[in-house]
Amino acid sequence: MNRNNDKLLFTPGPLTTSMTTKVAMMRDLGSRDFEFIEQVKFIRERLLQLAGVSVEAGYESIIMQGSGTFGIESVISSVIPDDGHLLVIINGVYGERISRMASIHRIHQSSLRFAENEVPDIAVVKEFLHENTDITHVAVIHCETTTGIINPIHEIGQLCAEAGKVYIVDAMSSFGAYPVDLQASGIHYLISSSNKCIEGVPGFSFVIAQREQLVSCEYNARTLSLDLFAQWKGLESNGQFRFTPPTHALLAFAAALAGLELEGGVAGRAKRYQENYQALAAGMKELGFREYLVPEHRGYIITCFHYPEDPSFDFVSFYEALNERGFVIYPGKLSEVNCFRIGNIGHINRQDIHNLVRAVGDVLAEKGILMDKQEA
Amino acid sequence: MNRNNDKLLFTPGPLTTSMTTKVAMMRDLGSRDFEFIEQVKFIRERLLQLAGVSVEAGYESIIMQGSGTFGIESVISSVIPDDGHLLVIINGVYGERISRMASIHRIHQSSLRFAENEVPDIAVVKEFLHENTDITHVAVIHCETTTGIINPIHEIGQLCAEAGKVYIVDAMSSFGAYPVDLQASGIHYLISSSNKCIEGVPGFSFVIAQREQLVSCEYNARTLSLDLFAQWKGLESNGQFRFTPPTHALLAFAAALAGLELEGGVAGRAKRYQENYQALAAGMKELGFREYLVPEHRGYIITCFHYPEDPSFDFVSFYEALNERGFVIYPGKLSEVNCFRIGNIGHINRQDIHNLVRAVGDVLAEKGILMDKQEA
Repeated sequence: MNRNNDKLLFTPGPLTTSMTTKVAMMRDLGSRDFEFIEQVKFIRERLLQLAGVSVEAGYESIIMQGSGTFGIESVISSVIPDDGHLLVIINGVYGERISRMASIHRIHQSSLRFAENEVPDIAVVKEFLHENTDITHVAVIHCETTTGIINPIHEIGQLCAEAGKVYIVDAMSSFGAYPVDLQASGIHYLISSSNKCIEGVPGFSFVIAQREQLVSCEYNARTLSLDLFAQWKGLESNGQFRFTPPTHALLAFAAALAGLELEGGVAGRAKRYQENYQALAAGMKELGFREYLVPEHRGYIITCFHYPEDPSFDFVSFYEALNERGFVIYPGKLSEVNCFRIGNIGHINRQDIHNLVRAVGDVLAEKGILMDKQEA
Repeated sequence: MNRNNDKLLFTPGPLTTSMTTKVAMMRDLGSRDFEFIEQVKFIRERLLQLAGVSVEAGYESIIMQGSGTFGIESVISSVIPDDGHLLVIINGVYGERISRMASIHRIHQSSLRFAENEVPDIAVVKEFLHENTDITHVAVIHCETTTGIINPIHEIGQLCAEAGKVYIVDAMSSFGAYPVDLQASGIHYLISSSNKCIEGVPGFSFVIAQREQLVSCEYNARTLSLDLFAQWKGLESNGQFRFTPPTHALLAFAAALAGLELEGGVAGRAKRYQENYQALAAGMKELGFREYLVPEHRGYIITCFHYPEDPSFDFVSFYEALNERGFVIYPGKLSEVNCFRIGNIGHINRQDIHNLVRAVGDVLAEKGILMDKQEA
């Protein structure tokens, strides 16, 4: 249990948030009122800072109502023209989701699929771009939450820059906890959401966009609600949203951004999450669990563990037993391997991880699950 | 100022909400966890009850992330097949918005436009449906927030039922405060949102759908995020959302629904809003303001007032002076007449309205605005 008697969330989000963040929601502000407009302005500026860019450097931040998926679909359905050709680089569920969006919007697309436990092969991507010069846009996931793998967004960005492609990065699970350099990596659109590493509550996503690219998309949108250009224009014209914003979630987010700064920004947050991950990895290894990813592909956002080999292990009863102890973990989503996942992000620290690992040990003992003590 | 030192909101939403509703957000629940799933189940059942229908009677409730507009676009883009033909009945901005959505999704549409201060003429609608037998769907706004006018959704529903049309009602501003009988009015889809008369916080919309109609729409969606059928199927399969839900806004909504029941349901809430409206109408008339709508078209959700005739009246400075006194009102949105609007909804009562009216009088006196004292 946390300080609020809620179970602690070891998931990819919604996450455990700080009391300060939640308390910020105890207000009702008018969505067109001065005070709220100031908060939105603060958020939009701070997001650019976190991305290492600025309005002066030619970037814009745009807030979009709905979950992270809405933000991704906003980009995919708003920025690719009818004669565009999207390459989706896929090594998990979230890459597949972008491909599905492109299909639904009848966008001409190609895809490069890699194994869920492998990062995209840069040489393969390079060759594909070389052989398919009509590709106009490239999309990839930064931290593919399916496994927690960290994809080489900088290297892919170099290829895109060389080949003159518009580059879209889904940084849903990583933004705020992994440093990212939009300019150096040639990223035109980066998408993340309120309830990930900035540790706000769910309710909206946001897009950091290179303005020159964005401006060229005025007539490309395929929806009203998810029209990225119109959303930006609305916010620019008078600081207001076109359609009702989640005012409370935005107030929480402003508080969460202030909390992130207090923690030392991306570097400070990354440090805590890394410590969480290290405590988790060590503790789970000690218990006999094996990580799904090889060491060089592992990140510190979310960690994927194989089920124990003992056939008496049942994930649902394991989950429920941890749940009763106040710890919420996450099921797996792999196509062919039985895994579960534990998130290292949110308002949790090493001690919380130690408590979780102890509870995992207790549950294994209680259920009589046999573990192999091996090298991970 | 209200009990929370926030300004009181006399707007169409986001609204002033109760402390109980806001306090419900002080928790972090996992979006796939049992306890949250139970809350979602409660909300979906209660919404059907409020609409006077049930699963047994063949209806379903579907929650959609994003603002009310996202819910409307979810219906418009998900339920009309490629060979459908939508009739949009328009007497204000929100009717126009539906028409715009249909255009963006390249849906074959016709529209019937009526003056902003008139309800749609039933005889005209009837004749149009008679002459255009290929119309498959009809959409209309219940309370057109542009003016606060209440449109005859039951009578239009009778015409749709007779002519065998699928009937879509945008009840954004009215649901929870005006009784509605989906079955008797032949409504297949009714859309509203979290931050209107149920007095939750913004973050999602919801749709009450007739199941048989809904089931026929499986392959009609034009987006991933706003796919109404898939969203319903997702909720039905395991009680979970396809994509991250606004957990805190949903917890607030569950509390708000409990509050609505405590107040005596739709009848109790309607009574308070009517009292608010009557206090507002009497007070503003006393001050010399004229309502935009003729008495028979007026509702009790939001009220549209003409600017005073005194040329020294300036809406922005009037708004700001009220704002400084702790009262947030709303600008007008009429195409040709200068009006402002005052909402009667949210967690406000007659005393709050009296205080607002007194503040309006003070501001008029302070600014030396001359008012004609006439019969409204």
